Amino acid sequence: MQVPTRDPRLRVMIAPGLSQAKPADVMRGEETQVAGALALMPKFDGVFCLPGTHSKWVHVSAGEAVSFQTFMTGEMFALLSQHSVLRHGMGGEGADEAAFTQGLTDAMDRPDRISARLFTLRAEGLLNGLTPDAARARLSGLLIGLELAAAKPYWLGQRIALIGAGALSTRYANALALQGQTAEILDATACTLAGLAAANGQIQKVTA
Amino acid sequence: MQVPTRDPRLRVMIAPGLSQAKPADVMRGEETQVAGALALMPKFDGVFCLPGTHSKWVHVSAGEAVSFQTFMTGEMFALLSQHSVLRHGMGGEGADEAAFTQGLTDAMDRPDRISARLFTLRAEGLLNGLTPDAARARLSGLLIGLELAAAKPYWLGQRIALIGAGALSTRYANALALQGQTAEILDATACTLAGLAAANGQIQKVTA
Repeated sequence: MQVPTRDPRLRVMIAPGLSQAKPADVMRGEETQVAGALALMPKFDGVFCLPGTHSKWVHVSAGEAVSFQTFMTGEMFALLSQHSVLRHGMGGEGADEAAFTQGLTDAMDRPDRISARLFTLRAEGLLNGLTPDAARARLSGLLIGLELAAAKPYWLGQRIALIGAGALSTRYANALALQGQTAEILDATACTLAGLAAANGQIQKVTA
Repeated sequence: MQVPTRDPRLRVMIAPGLSQAKPADVMRGEETQVAGALALMPKFDGVFCLPGTHSKWVHVSAGEAVSFQTFMTGEMFALLSQHSVLRHGMGGEGADEAAFTQGLTDAMDRPDRISARLFTLRAEGLLNGLTPDAARARLSGLLIGLELAAAKPYWLGQRIALIGAGALSTRYANALALQGQTAEILDATACTLAGLAAANGQIQKVTA
């Protein structure tokens, strides 16, 4: 989509997002990374996972996004760890791997009980001395586990690529490994640049 | 527990809360309402539900609280409806009963998919014209449904009394009715006063 500019020598384009009718969903930005990942791996068939504030799972087949789903995992984590009653017992980096795995396993095994698990973090801080670091890691595990439980139709038995290097993607990869799934990790910047280059290539072709 | 006062003619007491070792949980205030409900209905055997910011379910038998569990339903609703991306499409009273029931049914049927349902509210607002009122009611239904799914071991086949008159308790009663459960509704103020009177009666007896 072309954007008006004051300088006629400039031609600025905005890549459109994706929308899906059912279940209703929207994507604004991640589609460029997915297109870039496909440009880098043209034969990829499986799912991309883009962890973050609004995590996206995208099922790709024959070079096309077939379906996708958004999960508010990162935003829920920020709200609960910083703005809810749980903030009183949260802190540090939340890098306690054992606590993360416990939360993850709890949520994956019984996602229906998630609503009962959250306040327990507060109570365990008050009664059992649960450390702020462990509480934060357990909350992260619970919420990522809840996402993975709901996203199971996406990842089960599929080839999985996580877009986004860094600690969060490593957590997702480890969590998936516990479910017997291997995930490769792609660099987000490389995917974004490849996606923009691919979009630019298409524009040049169309307007040539 | 007696509190120090400057005027020796005053004797101020604070009623202690309840704590539970496993699963770790705490209660500060609701125990007085539960004691009051038991004072009003001494033969009550079943569960009390106290809906609110931190909803409590309390299993009572032979005049004693046997176990209880806290759910962060009200706080989650406030955070998601006012501070998350969902706030853009939320408004009104959320009194759309059909939307509430849809959210409730979705969450009760597939609580494991809750994480996938939330962002759908935002997307349906953008794509399908979901009204702010319906979005708010559906969110309420989703979160109360999630609580009821996790609290099922409490309410299934039990006598249920909701403490707290008003719209929220009516919603819980209607939600439980959809599960084939009848719940009576008790006035919160009456329970609080009866609970304080009962505590005072015990103090008078002990110190007489």
